[in-house]
Amino acid sequence: MWRAEIKVLLKKSVLDPQGRAVEKALASLGYNNVNRVRIGKYLEVTVATPDRAAAEAQVREMCARLLTNPVIEDYTFTLVEVEA
Amino acid sequence: MWRAEIKVLLKKSVLDPQGRAVEKALASLGYNNVNRVRIGKYLEVTVATPDRAAAEAQVREMCARLLTNPVIEDYTFTLVEVEA
Repeated sequence: MWRAEIKVLLKKSVLDPQGRAVEKALASLGYNNVNRVRIGKYLEVTVATPDRAAAEAQVREMCARLLTNPVIEDYTFTLVEVEA
Repeated sequence: MWRAEIKVLLKKSVLDPQGRAVEKALASLGYNNVNRVRIGKYLEVTVATPDRAAAEAQVREMCARLLTNPVIEDYTFTLVEVEA
């Protein structure tokens, strides 16, 4: 079994109002050395397949079909082998 | 400068209805080998401080004060050194 740890962020060219709001909130708390705040989704998905390459292909397919919006989002993921 | 890559998930003891919904949606698409779907937030925050230890302490403080809800969420983060 493999656990996919998927990080999803808006593409760099897409405005991230949530990130901007948090950046301003941090500044108002006194953290003036903080910038480039981006906020996205983090997903953990466990795939029951023995083969790493098959797990990777399946995660990629699930991201394209359901988990992310490829028009406005980019994602990266890592696979971690886990016990059943 | 350091980029903190922060992963936030609901604690294991807290129900994750969004994760359950996505798990069911994946099953209905034919992915029957998928389970333990957990959905959280992913944040990237750039902190302008030369010192790694200072950056780490600051990120921890920002997570406790604003970025996460320590009552129901757990977080982990990694620091990546970036160019100014």
